[in-house]
This record gives sequence, C-alpha cells and structure tokens, in this order.
Amino acid sequence: VIVTLAGGVGAARFLAGLLDVVPPGDVTAIVNVGDDFVLHGLSISPDLDTVTYTLAGEVDRQRGWGRADETWLVMEELERYGGQTWFGLGDRDLALHLYRSQRRAEGATLSEITAEVARAKGLGVRLLPVTDDRLATKVVVPGEGELAFQDWFVGRRHALPVEAVRFDGAAESRPAPGVLDAIASADLVVVAPSNPVVSIAPVLAVAGVGEAVRRRRDDVVAVSPIVGGRALKGPAAELLSTLGAGATAVGVARWYASEVGTLVIDELDTSLASEVAATGVRCVVTDTVMRDRAAAAALARVVLGAVEP
Amino acid sequence: VIVTLAGGVGAARFLAGLLDVVPPGDVTAIVNVGDDFVLHGLSISPDLDTVTYTLAGEVDRQRGWGRADETWLVMEELERYGGQTWFGLGDRDLALHLYRSQRRAEGATLSEITAEVARAKGLGVRLLPVTDDRLATKVVVPGEGELAFQDWFVGRRHALPVEAVRFDGAAESRPAPGVLDAIASADLVVVAPSNPVVSIAPVLAVAGVGEAVRRRRDDVVAVSPIVGGRALKGPAAELLSTLGAGATAVGVARWYASEVGTLVIDELDTSLASEVAATGVRCVVTDTVMRDRAAAAALARVVLGAVEP
Repeated sequence: VIVTLAGGVGAARFLAGLLDVVPPGDVTAIVNVGDDFVLHGLSISPDLDTVTYTLAGEVDRQRGWGRADETWLVMEELERYGGQTWFGLGDRDLALHLYRSQRRAEGATLSEITAEVARAKGLGVRLLPVTDDRLATKVVVPGEGELAFQDWFVGRRHALPVEAVRFDGAAESRPAPGVLDAIASADLVVVAPSNPVVSIAPVLAVAGVGEAVRRRRDDVVAVSPIVGGRALKGPAAELLSTLGAGATAVGVARWYASEVGTLVIDELDTSLASEVAATGVRCVVTDTVMRDRAAAAALARVVLGAVEP
Repeated sequence: VIVTLAGGVGAARFLAGLLDVVPPGDVTAIVNVGDDFVLHGLSISPDLDTVTYTLAGEVDRQRGWGRADETWLVMEELERYGGQTWFGLGDRDLALHLYRSQRRAEGATLSEITAEVARAKGLGVRLLPVTDDRLATKVVVPGEGELAFQDWFVGRRHALPVEAVRFDGAAESRPAPGVLDAIASADLVVVAPSNPVVSIAPVLAVAGVGEAVRRRRDDVVAVSPIVGGRALKGPAAELLSTLGAGATAVGVARWYASEVGTLVIDELDTSLASEVAATGVRCVVTDTVMRDRAAAAALARVVLGAVEP
C-alpha cells in the first residue's frame, strides 16, 4: 500500500496521477484537517473535499477546489443579507457540507463521514483525515496577532506576512483510526507536493504521526512543492522563506530532513541536486509540474521508483 | 399598535392583509419558535421564515412556505449522499439559514437576527420571536413515544395520532425583549388563524406571555382557524379534536376562553355563533377564508373593528 500525506490541490492532483498507476485499493491518503473550520454552522474540511472532488472527477480544474459546473445561488442570496461570503461555497459543494454537519451532529466521526462520502462517490481509495479530533492551524501575523488559518488564507488572501504557525489541539489530538497502522505497514510513504508549513506540518504534528513517519524515513519520498524558487500554487514559498530554510528545493529538503529519505525535485532545479543531497536527503530529479493527468501519472511512476526495494 | 400572535402560513397571510390596512410601523408580530430545530448544523425557524417571506412578497404561494421561483440544487445533491432531505430547504431559502446559523454562532440572539433579516428585506413591521431561549414543541404519539415537532409534522406528515403536546423549555424560557411590553401596550392583540395547539399554545406557554395576554383579554381577538369543522391547512382539526374541545369554532372558543375576549368565526359557521357566545367569548361572524390578499385585508378590517373602543 502507498500511503500519501496530503494537503489540498497539489496532493489531489498527485493522487489522481497515482491512481492511474496503482489500483485504488493500494492507496491510502492521510489528509490535513488543520484548515478545517466552522462557518454558517457548517463543518468545512477544505483539503478532504479537494481530494475527494478531484478523485471523483468532480473538481473545478481552473480553481483547483470546489465543484465543476458549479452554481452560486446560495452565496448570491447570502450577499443580500450581508452574510459572510468570503469563503466560497457553491451550491453543489454546500450539499456535502450539509451532509457532513448533520452526520457530525449525529455523532459520526470525521473518518466515518469521509468514508461515507468516498463510498457515495464510488472512490476505491482510502481517505483518512489525520485526526478526528480538533486541529486548528493558526498563523501569527505581526501587528495582527493570531489568525485562524482560513481568515488569513482566504479571508486575507494570504497577503499578510507570517511570523509563526501553530497547530492548536495537536498535542491533545489522536491519530484517526488506521492512520498509524497505515504508516507503519506502508510499502512507501509519499509526502505529496503540498505546502510543507501549513499542509504537511499539521499532519506531522498530530501526536504520534510525525514519530511514525520518522520511523519509516528510508521509505518516505517527498515531492518538492517548490520549483525554481516558487510554489506552483499558494504561499509555500513565502512561508518557507520566512519560517523555514528558504524557498528552494534545498529549503524543502532541510525542512523535511528528519522525516523524508528521498526528495523528488524538478528538472528546473537540477543544479540544486547536490546541495539537496548534502542535507542528507537522497535526491531524484524529474519533471514535477503536473500540467495534466498524464504528467501527474508520470510523476507518480518516478515517485514509486524513487526508493530501491 | 396591533400585536399579532403568529404561527406560520395562516398568520403570515393574515399579517399581509393587515399591512394593507394599517401602516407597518403599527404592527408587531410575536412569532412561534416551538417548531424551530437544527438540521445540517443549520438553525431553522419555520414560522419566522414563513412570516418574513410572505411579508417580503417572496413566499411560494402554492406551498405557503419557502421562496417563490425556488431551485433545489443543494437538496438534489444532498440526496446523492443519502442525506436528510425530508425537510425541504430550497437554494435561496438556504441562504437565510446560513445567515442565521452564522449570526447565532457569533452570539447574536434570534430577536436580533430576525430584525436584521427584516431590515435586509425592507420590512417595516416588527417581528419578534416569542423567546430567544430554547423552546421545543414535542408531540407524544401512542406506540412511538415523544417526537420532535418537525419529525412528526414534516417527517411523518402529521399522519400519526397525537395524545399529548409538550413545550420543552417553556418554563425556563424568557419572553424576547419587547414581547411583554408589546402585549401590555397594544391597542389590540390578535390571535392569528394559526394552529391553536401547536402554533399559538407554545407562544402562550413562554413564561409570562400567557399571563400578559390574559390580562388583556378584553382586547384580544382571535380568528378561528377552523371553518366548517376543518382546518384550511395543517392538522389543527385533528389536534383540537383529540386534545381540545372539538374541531369546531366552538372548540376553538373553549380552547381560547381564558385568553380571548372575541372570536371571529366564518360565515359557514354562523349557526355556531350563539354556542360560541355561550362559552363566554364574544362572537363576530365574517368571511375568514383568505383566498387572496383582498380577502385577507377584508378580514383584517373586521378584526380591527371587532373590539369596540
């Protein structure tokens, strides 16, 4: 089984490619829930939904999140009340949020609900939220104090500089059922090309998960989300630059040095390969830009071959 | 000021007629919240919304509730997850529920939210939930035990016989700000043609409200929701028959005898006028069937003239 630690859009695209290469029953995704929050009384799990919609072939490819062919009647009407429309929930997307919120009120765990949704969509892959407990990513912005992740990421369009990131609840959280076993028994653990600081770090912060991954370090392959000093999507470069070891493939290698045995970097960064290797992380160079499904599948094949058996 | 104790559809139609006769600033509606419940994580207030949509000219006239020209994309999609679609929430209607739920999470009271929504829709009338506290109508069904109101009313289409009705939380509930003052200072208190057992009784059950209305008994006029032994809409006849004093205008008079000085009954029930009077409630006979807005306005005029100044 291939276990993938996943954030949102980048992870979802990688997983779609991976599923073109291995049967869905051989894939387990452990997904970040640090971005989860409640708005309008609804339980929102952005990364789980991006992965689910992408693997179901329902995602809006342009945006990378939400449903394709979406309509926005509810949000347009909410605008008339002066309601909170800063976080876009399309009409079809809302249905999943109603379902999740009701099931949570009935006592179902996020794991159970995620499995129900995957089943309803006919996904053979196993999707696990990293924890069923509360985990809330907070960012500290100079002059503003601590913001909830989505208030910063979507509400303020991640334009404000961040001086610290904190994963509220991480110490008390328990890995969701199956998470530790999946990591311990995986043939390969892949760290998807997601934001290391705010997508993968909260996954590793759940009590026991980081330790479990470190124990498998030789079998852990990460794909660098930084190509040519920039993130293909989102604020990974800025965050690695401020909080990490620099917004380059080398910075990613340093960031992941304890957990990751092999880092896959882009051909654009070939010149950094020896510097990556010098951090103690094996380096594999390939085309990592998933411009289409075929490119994602090709990347998945390289990742699968990155660790010699 | 004319204060109207209101349930859902019948009250909303009466209020629309009343507003054709008196300026909106002279009308206060005190609305039942015993039907309120939470589903999908959303705070649902059916009677408040029916009154609001009706007075805003937005209601679906056929159904009597929800929005006109409504679409049902979210519910159709929710069906795909096997979600709870028994309580119909149209797309535009959902926006109000998102707004209310978010405002409640922010700490706003139901009164405040109701006023905000009325303002957003440009309603000049004052809408007050009878209480900002929890009030939950429960029905006892033989062989099934106690059901939440909506589970019986919508979920089971009020087909099951009811042996008792209970207003959970009534004793601990406090009238919403303005409710007792409005009743005490009203020129006239109107009990709308709503279900006496499950729409008006919970209003009167809120601590202090029944007492306040009884103190104004001479100035209280009710419109019978029973015409020719039948309710025009909903289960009022069955409930009055089982739990009350019979499903006739006389039964309504007996039911309301402590609170209501004058009962307006339909011309179809002219023969019952003396029997109504014998219960100690003055009787006024008119056409009470609000087949259109003009009929509702005519009824409102009769109600306004029913108590001699």
